[in-house]
Amino acid sequence: MSKIKVSAFSVSLDGFGAGPNQDLQNPLGLRGLELHGWLLKSAVFQALHGGSGGTRGVDNELAARSFENVGAWIIGRNMFGPVRGPWSANETGDSWNGWWGDDPPYHVPVFVLTRHPRPTLVMKGNTTFYFVTEGIASALEQAKAAAQGQDIRIGGGVSTIRQYLTAGLIDEMHLALSPVALGEGENLFAGLSLPALGFTTSQMSFGEEAMHVILSHASKK
Amino acid sequence: MSKIKVSAFSVSLDGFGAGPNQDLQNPLGLRGLELHGWLLKSAVFQALHGGSGGTRGVDNELAARSFENVGAWIIGRNMFGPVRGPWSANETGDSWNGWWGDDPPYHVPVFVLTRHPRPTLVMKGNTTFYFVTEGIASALEQAKAAAQGQDIRIGGGVSTIRQYLTAGLIDEMHLALSPVALGEGENLFAGLSLPALGFTTSQMSFGEEAMHVILSHASKK
Repeated sequence: MSKIKVSAFSVSLDGFGAGPNQDLQNPLGLRGLELHGWLLKSAVFQALHGGSGGTRGVDNELAARSFENVGAWIIGRNMFGPVRGPWSANETGDSWNGWWGDDPPYHVPVFVLTRHPRPTLVMKGNTTFYFVTEGIASALEQAKAAAQGQDIRIGGGVSTIRQYLTAGLIDEMHLALSPVALGEGENLFAGLSLPALGFTTSQMSFGEEAMHVILSHASKK
Repeated sequence: MSKIKVSAFSVSLDGFGAGPNQDLQNPLGLRGLELHGWLLKSAVFQALHGGSGGTRGVDNELAARSFENVGAWIIGRNMFGPVRGPWSANETGDSWNGWWGDDPPYHVPVFVLTRHPRPTLVMKGNTTFYFVTEGIASALEQAKAAAQGQDIRIGGGVSTIRQYLTAGLIDEMHLALSPVALGEGENLFAGLSLPALGFTTSQMSFGEEAMHVILSHASKK
């Protein structure tokens, strides 16, 4: 059955999924890159960027799994880019096509949550960005239709995941805990109780640079 | 040089060092035991309780290290017991001698932070509990004098560690992150920034059931 899932989502040991002050130079916020060491070094990630090296252990295996059977993504606007306010109101404006160049690593429909309408953006490699202004339920409905029975991956960032979590719409979360403290940024857990939301740990494994935990919703085990 | 350190302190993936509602039946709060799987199964812990089995991998090695070169402990009153208010005001009262029986696993002086005075308590096996009503700085001073050049271990719980952290008095913290979410209880990180307090990750290793991270204070590296 099709799942709604969070995959390979990196979190600091103190609960932050991104650093503060995201901007053009810091897509993941200050020090945000440090959360992703396990992923950035993996062969899967290196291959996405045309490389042939990288680690081939547990971290890599879980990175690979995170891309399997994904029929559509949903992401927040800040995961799509640093633009705030109306798309045309600042220097990058409508010309902002995401952080990933002409051929983004999605290769399926991606639904971007935003309050600011924008025409659909067709990229190379089968990635299409749809800008959804009607809220998370609408984005999910559209993503389900697009995914044709495959899973929906809620990509992030923290705010998007928290919205889907509190709405009870997530079946499974794979978190990768990195051994660094950030101290500030976007906190995934603050004020939320995963157990109260129905989640318990269903799998765990240690990679080379992260602890991987899969939390499943009670209704989906 | 003598260090002031937190060792083998278990934390859930969402930052809790103990569950809620500590009482006589739940010394670590509800579900608190789940944070300590890595420790409870270790040969070191089993031996402390007269057993001869247990794991002998990385988790066990770090459990063993947590007891090395400790000249004195400082613990909060709730780590010592479930008694609240004056010692004699409830059923266990003055007769409460800690969770650990006649021969507690400390074998050195232990300074217990409390607002309620109580005579020093001498136990078997060289453990003596001193009840300190003059605050954390006084407890540290007394512990240093007692430790005779060995390290001071800030045992916990969360509130005690946070008090010493924010006072800038901790040199090193070994946290053991367990792959479970608690959702409620005593949060070690909420409202604190370890980097702002001067801590960065100096070592990490994966055990069988926990991710071990050692954070060191900038002044002590």
